[in-house]
Formats: sequence, C-alpha cells, structure tokens
Amino acid sequence: MGRTSDARERLIQSGMDLLQAGGYAQAGVQEICARAGVRKGSFYHFFATKSHLGLAVVEQFHAASIALLDQALAKDLPVPERIERLFLMVATIQETFRDEAGAVKGCPFGNLVLEMSTRDESLRLVLARVLRDTIARLESTLRSGSPAAEPARIREQAEAIFSLLEGAILVAKAENDPAIIRRMALCARQMVAASA
Amino acid sequence: MGRTSDARERLIQSGMDLLQAGGYAQAGVQEICARAGVRKGSFYHFFATKSHLGLAVVEQFHAASIALLDQALAKDLPVPERIERLFLMVATIQETFRDEAGAVKGCPFGNLVLEMSTRDESLRLVLARVLRDTIARLESTLRSGSPAAEPARIREQAEAIFSLLEGAILVAKAENDPAIIRRMALCARQMVAASA
Repeated sequence: MGRTSDARERLIQSGMDLLQAGGYAQAGVQEICARAGVRKGSFYHFFATKSHLGLAVVEQFHAASIALLDQALAKDLPVPERIERLFLMVATIQETFRDEAGAVKGCPFGNLVLEMSTRDESLRLVLARVLRDTIARLESTLRSGSPAAEPARIREQAEAIFSLLEGAILVAKAENDPAIIRRMALCARQMVAASA
Repeated sequence: MGRTSDARERLIQSGMDLLQAGGYAQAGVQEICARAGVRKGSFYHFFATKSHLGLAVVEQFHAASIALLDQALAKDLPVPERIERLFLMVATIQETFRDEAGAVKGCPFGNLVLEMSTRDESLRLVLARVLRDTIARLESTLRSGSPAAEPARIREQAEAIFSLLEGAILVAKAENDPAIIRRMALCARQMVAASA
C-alpha cells in the first residue's frame, strides 16, 4: 500500500488506465483499489461511489485535452494549419501508445461515451459537456479564420472537424494503426482552407 | 426456455442487445443464456467460446449494414445525394432507438471497437475488416461520381466520409440526440459535391 497522501491521484490513475484498456465499466471498486494499491476504505474517503471516481477521471482527461487543444490551436500558424496540427498531435499520441503498450488506445472521451453513456446518465451529461466544450474551442478558432462567415456554418464546420477526428481515432483503434489520423489531418486542413 | 430450433438466433440476438446497451464485455455466458432463455449447455453446442458468439454478432450486424449501404447508395440519385441519404438513414435509425428505447444506441461496430478491440485480438481483426469493407463500398460509389479523380484521393475521401459518420454517431450518443447526424448529412454532401 502506498502513501495515503497520493491515494486519490493513484485511484484516478487506476481509473484512467482501466478506461483506456476498455475495462472501466466492468471493474469493481475492489479491482480499482487493488490496481492503485489503495485500501477499499480509503476509496470511500475520496469518492462516494464509482460514478464519482468516473467524474474525476473525466476531469483529469479534460484538463489534458484542453492543454493539447491550446497547444495545437495556438495562433502562430494560419487556421487550416492549426487544425492539421491538432490531428497530427493526436496521431503522435496514438503512435506512442501503440509503440509503448502495443495498442492504439483511442480517445478517452470516445471510449467512455461508447462504454458508459447508456449506463450512467450523470456521466453521459458530463461527457456531452466536454465534447461540446471541445467543439466550441474549434468553433472559436475557425471563426477567427473566417470572421465574415455565417455563425451556423462555422459551428457545423467545427462539429464536422471534431466528428472527423473522433471517427478517425475509432478506425485507428480498430486497425491498431494511427495512419488514418495522419491522412485525415490533410483532409481537415483542406476542408478548412476551402471554406475560408 | 424457448424452442431449441431458434436457440442460436436467440443467443445472437441476446449478444446484439447486450452490445448495444454497452454491456457485452462484462456479460458472462450465463447472463447471455439467461437473456436468451437458452440453457448454458446449448450455448456450447453452438459456440465454442463467448468470442465465437461475438463473431456471429458482428456477422449479423454486418449483414444489416450491407443492406443499409445498398439501399442508401443505390444509383437512383447523384453521388453526393446518395452519401447524404446514408447519413439521413442512420439518423432515422438512431431517432427510432431514442424514441423507442430512450437512448441513442450508436453504431454497433463503433461500440464493439471501443469496448473490445484492446481485449480480443481476433474480434478486432474482424471489426477492422468490416470497417475496411464499408470504406471500400463508399470508395466505389465516390469513384463512380468522379471517374477521373486520383484513386488515392478518392480512398481518402471515403475514409473521411466514414470517419465523419462514425464521429457524428459518437457525439449523438453522448448527447442522446441524433440531430448532429442530420447536420453532418449536408456537410458530407457538400464535401463530395465540391470535389466532384
């Protein structure tokens, strides 16, 4: 058993690992604690239920995803190239997973949506908010590149870019090969450039 | 317990239902049999392992998906409108799920990829083949609309259309609202029309 002081962090890490391995839904609190090296009693000190741990896991992934978006969408490049950079950064992350762990792990939000959204309504609502927040960030970047475009059109383009990225990550996971994400990077850049 | 004669079909249906409810991975053979009203001994008469049932479930969904693609991509419309029709048909299916069962169930292949692909390698390979087959059908439709286009470009566009569709279904599931799939139908039509 590790130090109590970082038990909460280790429980969250254990939830993140299980989720990315496709085993979050069926893991019990006992298994999560065993992986984290934390006593079951301590779990309930930090989280009232497994669902509360799920929310903390989403929060942690969300913070990482905001950092990634900030870096990818930074204003040092024209807008189409920023969108391309986002796809390329995601491809690199998935390549690292595959090279280090043998498997493309996919998008944690996508994984959690498909694994949990018909089973845990409060988690579904949080995930929907995270997805909407990501689409809103894309929308704001796209608007800065096409200030005269119709707002509804820009919102739809942001939804299309996000859907394209999530779908490409899903195919990459099925193929255990992130190459499609790199191909879609160019596609996304051209989509944005064509409408600018 | 129902008739033995349709026990195999009922086991497959039980696997399909569990998968669409996000509960396939953690369901044991016992639970699958109980849902199907089939004795556990009969399960092993039809399937050597749960993984073999998984393959039969994918096969069944694949047959349904081919029928849907054939209908959506039929040659009575110009190519961009056929692609739009595919999105609209998928939106209608998900609307029916939501209205009848209260939840957007999503794409069975997407669900299974995210739930199982890091856990069952033989199932992952079959799913990758189903996804590739779907992309190839889209590719062949797109090529008929742009016979002079570069083959690699057409293949990428087919991958983009498929990724866009899978990603939109994922967002629809998170939001429990298929509206985004209808918005992406127009997007997909315009993407195809612009490059024709």
